[in-house]
Amino acid sequence: MKDILGYLKSHEQEFMSELFDYLRIPSISATDANKSDINKAAVFTEKLLKKAGLKNVRQYKTKGNPLVYGEWLGAKGKPTVLIYGHYDVQPPDPLDLWKTAPFEPTIRNGKLFARGAADDKGQVFLHFKAIEAWLKTRKELPLNVKVIVEGEEEIGSPSLGAFIRQQKKLLKCDAILISDTNMEGTNIPSICYSLRGLTYLEMKVTSTKGDLHSGMFGGAVANPIQVLSEILVACKDPKTGKVKIPGFYKDVLPLTKRERANLARVPHDEKKFLRDIGARKAFGEKGYTTLERIGARPTFEVNGIWGGFTGEGVKTVLPAHASAKVSMRLVANQDPNKIARLFMNYVKKIAPDTVKLEVKMYENNGDPALTPLDFPGMKAAANAIRKTFGKDPVFTREGGSIPIVADFQKHLKAYSVLMGFGLPDDNLHAPNEKMNISQIKKGMATIAYFLDDYAQMSASG
Amino acid sequence: MKDILGYLKSHEQEFMSELFDYLRIPSISATDANKSDINKAAVFTEKLLKKAGLKNVRQYKTKGNPLVYGEWLGAKGKPTVLIYGHYDVQPPDPLDLWKTAPFEPTIRNGKLFARGAADDKGQVFLHFKAIEAWLKTRKELPLNVKVIVEGEEEIGSPSLGAFIRQQKKLLKCDAILISDTNMEGTNIPSICYSLRGLTYLEMKVTSTKGDLHSGMFGGAVANPIQVLSEILVACKDPKTGKVKIPGFYKDVLPLTKRERANLARVPHDEKKFLRDIGARKAFGEKGYTTLERIGARPTFEVNGIWGGFTGEGVKTVLPAHASAKVSMRLVANQDPNKIARLFMNYVKKIAPDTVKLEVKMYENNGDPALTPLDFPGMKAAANAIRKTFGKDPVFTREGGSIPIVADFQKHLKAYSVLMGFGLPDDNLHAPNEKMNISQIKKGMATIAYFLDDYAQMSASG
Repeated sequence: MKDILGYLKSHEQEFMSELFDYLRIPSISATDANKSDINKAAVFTEKLLKKAGLKNVRQYKTKGNPLVYGEWLGAKGKPTVLIYGHYDVQPPDPLDLWKTAPFEPTIRNGKLFARGAADDKGQVFLHFKAIEAWLKTRKELPLNVKVIVEGEEEIGSPSLGAFIRQQKKLLKCDAILISDTNMEGTNIPSICYSLRGLTYLEMKVTSTKGDLHSGMFGGAVANPIQVLSEILVACKDPKTGKVKIPGFYKDVLPLTKRERANLARVPHDEKKFLRDIGARKAFGEKGYTTLERIGARPTFEVNGIWGGFTGEGVKTVLPAHASAKVSMRLVANQDPNKIARLFMNYVKKIAPDTVKLEVKMYENNGDPALTPLDFPGMKAAANAIRKTFGKDPVFTREGGSIPIVADFQKHLKAYSVLMGFGLPDDNLHAPNEKMNISQIKKGMATIAYFLDDYAQMSASG
Repeated sequence: MKDILGYLKSHEQEFMSELFDYLRIPSISATDANKSDINKAAVFTEKLLKKAGLKNVRQYKTKGNPLVYGEWLGAKGKPTVLIYGHYDVQPPDPLDLWKTAPFEPTIRNGKLFARGAADDKGQVFLHFKAIEAWLKTRKELPLNVKVIVEGEEEIGSPSLGAFIRQQKKLLKCDAILISDTNMEGTNIPSICYSLRGLTYLEMKVTSTKGDLHSGMFGGAVANPIQVLSEILVACKDPKTGKVKIPGFYKDVLPLTKRERANLARVPHDEKKFLRDIGARKAFGEKGYTTLERIGARPTFEVNGIWGGFTGEGVKTVLPAHASAKVSMRLVANQDPNKIARLFMNYVKKIAPDTVKLEVKMYENNGDPALTPLDFPGMKAAANAIRKTFGKDPVFTREGGSIPIVADFQKHLKAYSVLMGFGLPDDNLHAPNEKMNISQIKKGMATIAYFLDDYAQMSASG
């Protein structure tokens, strides 16, 4: 690998210059005003893929922003890796909190500051350069590579899901490699192997046709806020934190001993964690650590509630309605639609006949995703990390959802390896987003190793 | 009484003309724009009291609108009745729903339409005329009378409470007579002997210093909406409707058999009642009828709740705060401050240590009020009603609060008799407020009888 690492080293200056140009494009997907910048960034991505030596580089039109695709399929009999990333960025507001302009990349103290430096242009760029180093040095890759870069990740990837379903053949692969996450710390390389899914619903309780005077009617009829509270309390045990919807845990893949041992190695300072968010105490499902509860256990949470008089002062009203938004974070192998149905059946069963209960399900549910720890791509990523960082990675489970990962798993029948090189203090979605130069260098090398390791791992597997 | 009833009869035309002039004054207390009308109405009230033959007629300035006072204290050794009413009215909006202008009194089908026709100018006017009939015919009253008419009832009587406390001697009396309520139906004369009190509080549950991402933190910490729901459910039993705050019912004066028999005679069509408000079913404290629950039993109600994301669509937020406004309607002999303290102690005790709970008490609490059924004033009112309406009154308990009645009871140590001549379809606080002419005539006669009956009842008692 000396030749490839040598190429990466000797072209650092040139790469930086290219990355600066990439980051200068304000490819904000949230605002219509930046449509031409989006297109500029898509064209620039094409240019980088071509320069890397990929074939069939092209844009795919969608209802929204274009997808950029490229491939190198010259390794017959070898596995195929699909690399995913995004060229769009978050809006930079509030602008006055940036020390230097968000779209004028600046290096200070070994850190590259710019919107998109870590999320995700700076990270997807590492893949382009690892591929380039291989192809320029060896004229071939050790395996087949497909690259798909989207421009709508920051607005929820509205077009990519349909594209995956329609282009299963184009995107067919054995593993998906994504660098759009963090490491747990500067010297704590991490691989995320699990994401939670989500189902989101809204309940409305109605007791009467209009608000009533609490003096003239108080005591006569059910109070919809009280009834809604009863339903919410019936969904989660106040003592154990267990979700009480019958069947809720049935499909949950339990944590293995090995996984619990792995998660226990993820650095986590409980006191600092609680102090940072201003919580008095942790709370959640009994029998699990905080990281396990966030990453490996499903939850039931009320996201919002409203009803009756909420202004200043006093109004003696018996409200007619009360509503709540609730969501459940799910883990493998829970099915969001099945869980939504269980919830609906349960609350309709327990709601008293004094009120009308309406339940609405939102459509943007997401499946949970889980990559087995013994998946060859996971082993290859761990090997590559060991070579670059000189230590074993920690295996993490994230509490959030990246719906596209579940879509890949569902439609391409392939697992994702989430090997990110960002750091917890990279200020994603915030002013002064940055990526450490040392992470950029290590990231490129790690990916270059991964391509080789996965080719071998998969062959031997 | 023939002479007095004769005077009332022969002056009907003149009285109507005076009442029309009184109702023409748009004495709306809610809007600053009508300050001069308020003063006009106060002056007109003075004029009516003087014409009735009362002495020491004058205005008392307050921080708000003036009080109008008059007295006749020539009945040595006889009891004193304090008559209370108000000259201010509700705003007339929405104006376009009035068939005739709200401040241009109009008679249609034996009904007098105008803002204030029943609430309360039209009713307090009956007292002025009953007194006038006595004094013009007999040159004396059978007992001592004091009249106090306020101009801030529709905005919660902010000045009268302090005035009562400061002017205990001026207002000293044996009974208070108020006509500011309804009869239960055209031929169902009613006397209200009980009003509920109120204590109103607000709770705020805080779990973290800011909203959190429900993916990254869901399962780690307590959800403040969930905790608030748990607290609300711990306050009222979902099955029995009983308030679960320890000591809540301790001071409640239980309903006697006689009271329950009385209340059972109050006309009440449960099906129609529920249909009118659009309720599927009644709900409340087990073991009591709907009218008992509204009039004679205390309640715990949530008046408003809010927390987290309440907009359109989906936001996967773990809220930092959740708040609720709650109030308790109280009955004799519950003390609003004591009940508020019981509530605060209880919720602070049951709130889990995962959150911060703040409880705020609003100041405008009101004591409950109850006039014993064997109070001479009650008996005199029943007698007077019997003479005019030819039947016994029903004795009712109202679920709402008239804080001033509790203030009278507390500071003047005198019971109130709530003998109103309005009807349920009078459209109080609504367009097309009216009072039936037949009720006006019967009302004046009933009050004239009452003065005589109470003088005798009290003497014989």
